[in-house]
Amino acid sequence: MSKVLVSLLAGLIASSALAETPNFGTAQETDPAAMGWMQGSPPPADKVIRHSDMSLYRFPQTRWSFANFRQLVPTSDVWRGASPVSTLPVAIDKNIDALTFQPMGQDGSMTWEDSLAANYTDAIVVLHNGRIVYERYFGVMQQHIPHMTMSVTKSFFGTLGAILVAEGKLDPTALVTKYIPELRDSAFGDATVRQVLDMTTGIKYSEDYTDPSAEIYQHVRAGSVFPRPADYDGPKTFYEFLLTLKKEGEHGQAFSYKTVNSDVLGWLIRRVTGQSVGEFLSERIWQKIGAEEDGYMLVDTVGNEFAGGGFNATARDMARFGEMMRMGGRFNGQQVVPAAAVEDITRGASTEDFAKAGYKTLPGWSYRDQWWVSHDDHGVYAARGIHGQTIYIDPKAGMVIARLASFPLAANANIDPTSLPAYRALADYLMK
Amino acid sequence: MSKVLVSLLAGLIASSALAETPNFGTAQETDPAAMGWMQGSPPPADKVIRHSDMSLYRFPQTRWSFANFRQLVPTSDVWRGASPVSTLPVAIDKNIDALTFQPMGQDGSMTWEDSLAANYTDAIVVLHNGRIVYERYFGVMQQHIPHMTMSVTKSFFGTLGAILVAEGKLDPTALVTKYIPELRDSAFGDATVRQVLDMTTGIKYSEDYTDPSAEIYQHVRAGSVFPRPADYDGPKTFYEFLLTLKKEGEHGQAFSYKTVNSDVLGWLIRRVTGQSVGEFLSERIWQKIGAEEDGYMLVDTVGNEFAGGGFNATARDMARFGEMMRMGGRFNGQQVVPAAAVEDITRGASTEDFAKAGYKTLPGWSYRDQWWVSHDDHGVYAARGIHGQTIYIDPKAGMVIARLASFPLAANANIDPTSLPAYRALADYLMK
Repeated sequence: MSKVLVSLLAGLIASSALAETPNFGTAQETDPAAMGWMQGSPPPADKVIRHSDMSLYRFPQTRWSFANFRQLVPTSDVWRGASPVSTLPVAIDKNIDALTFQPMGQDGSMTWEDSLAANYTDAIVVLHNGRIVYERYFGVMQQHIPHMTMSVTKSFFGTLGAILVAEGKLDPTALVTKYIPELRDSAFGDATVRQVLDMTTGIKYSEDYTDPSAEIYQHVRAGSVFPRPADYDGPKTFYEFLLTLKKEGEHGQAFSYKTVNSDVLGWLIRRVTGQSVGEFLSERIWQKIGAEEDGYMLVDTVGNEFAGGGFNATARDMARFGEMMRMGGRFNGQQVVPAAAVEDITRGASTEDFAKAGYKTLPGWSYRDQWWVSHDDHGVYAARGIHGQTIYIDPKAGMVIARLASFPLAANANIDPTSLPAYRALADYLMK
Repeated sequence: MSKVLVSLLAGLIASSALAETPNFGTAQETDPAAMGWMQGSPPPADKVIRHSDMSLYRFPQTRWSFANFRQLVPTSDVWRGASPVSTLPVAIDKNIDALTFQPMGQDGSMTWEDSLAANYTDAIVVLHNGRIVYERYFGVMQQHIPHMTMSVTKSFFGTLGAILVAEGKLDPTALVTKYIPELRDSAFGDATVRQVLDMTTGIKYSEDYTDPSAEIYQHVRAGSVFPRPADYDGPKTFYEFLLTLKKEGEHGQAFSYKTVNSDVLGWLIRRVTGQSVGEFLSERIWQKIGAEEDGYMLVDTVGNEFAGGGFNATARDMARFGEMMRMGGRFNGQQVVPAAAVEDITRGASTEDFAKAGYKTLPGWSYRDQWWVSHDDHGVYAARGIHGQTIYIDPKAGMVIARLASFPLAANANIDPTSLPAYRALADYLMK
């Protein structure tokens, strides 16, 4: 159960990259189509996946539910607009599957193709200089099906925040309370917009799953991400929950990955734009990049988007978004995101502040505008979801990877060893 | 409350067309955008609409919720496919608003434009010979937003059933149990597919809202259309509920509008195709007509579509579907529905069997394949939802009307007087 909770809200876990992975069954053994989840009319009782009994968050059910969240919970549309789909030229490179790389902390090597199964990949699209050089779908995934991106959602919110900053509509040096006075008596009462964007706030937010009073339980129940007990009388929305948070330590001292910052960012976007986050995302990004499909958001009972991990999109549309970022905000014949916003993201934040959080697989990285920035020699930066979902952008190699996955553990520390080196090996290959 | 329940499941009510309408406020007074439903971050407590407290089914909240159902309940996608949107030429006729007609049972006349407000229209598209001659959106509706169609859904299911019959995959003379042996001991044990398609089964299905044991309560709770009490231990899906139904009278004697027939039809479609109803609808109709937008279905906890009223679509896409039917199943450069299926629908069923049900506003009509067939001199037939939603096809006039609405009473007997004569007046005008 704790792994499930982590998957929703905790984001990256600062645990050892070498931790033993329990035997969950291989990707092939847990293929959701072969397992027959939710197949048949009616499906057999032991093949049913529901929100009310939490089975949608359990592995291997997640291999089905991550491609079918809207059938299980309320959602809001992120409209693709009425414009034509933007063209992604296809130039498949059949040599990629055989590429080899050395996983972190291992002596032997692994092929690119084997890494996909090792990481329980559900869908993957790789662009090189804007062309699709690799594309695969597994299990119940197809090109047109949106998949749960988990914390990749945060980077969409962060990009929207950076847009508002670049356009002068959101002042990063201002206190959050300039826009949301309601937060005055909460932990965010003396936090700046920048501290929220970069997650350097000091917030008492426990993810101790053995403690029934831990804030994380209130968070997921407030937002209806988890079902509520019959006698539930806690906060009823994400934003109501934010009002209850208390400070722990000082703001601006260290990076501390806490999803509640993303919720505050969502509230800021709504206050500044007068639109829902989904509407603003549609209008400013989804419609402009010529997305193939609508995306969708998980919402709470008043329509607030789940900032922590509520966005669902297709692999191709995530790749389009990544390509737009790689091109400095320009895609589909227009400037989608202001260049200044992209620059603010790719510049990154303090690596010292980041190091204090102890991410063993991410040495020298930082976190800026809800993006993970590597500061490596390729200028890599990424959106990262807790079950291996990613938008990985390598500017030097001209490469964008969009990956959707359902790794059994909610722990990028277990996923990074067989993904980050694979991405780098592919980049090096494509640059040859 | 009873009106709400009727709205979901009862379909047409055989009450007097002249019944007094309580004062619910005019269409203008209940404009959902002006009323501010679900606006603001957060919306004021008295402007929140939820599933758990049933407010999504209350008027005037319905004027917002019918355009936003997916934000409130789980849904499944009806994919529009990857093909281009089919063209609907636009040739707006500005004279239509001033057309007059005489409402049923009234002495005076009413203009077309006034009828839209009288019927709480949310969106309307009129095609004449395939061109848009009239198009309006009200309140929170826009061209791209799917709207709850209520029992118009049944005609989509019926068309899919007629396709399977025309293709020899579903035998209308066979017992339902040939395909669904599980129904052997239910009221449907000795019913034929044809009786289900045309709703001439004899089923004990009470809609007496004063009786807590009435079957209707089990139906809506089984399918999660209504929230369940904490101690609920009844059927958990639409199809589980069907197994509990008992017979009342004989099959094949009279038309009796009971939504459970549509549920059985949905189950038949799933059994025969091996697909969900939404997938089959997408593959066979939505993708082929070049729909502008995905539609979506309300689903129960195992993904079964709510046959009684779960389909949500845009007005333009409903118009495309109607135009395809008007053209004998041909649209967008291809035969979408077999001509034999369209003929089976438009031929209608027994008017004598229909007359026994006592619909005062529908003299001489019949019900065939889940469509309402007028047998009038224009060959009119229609899909009808209980709050005024319709796809109204007038073959002689070359006219198709797609209307989405949220009339405060769940009673077409109250809506028909100011809609059916308006439709006929428009047809006569267009034929000039």
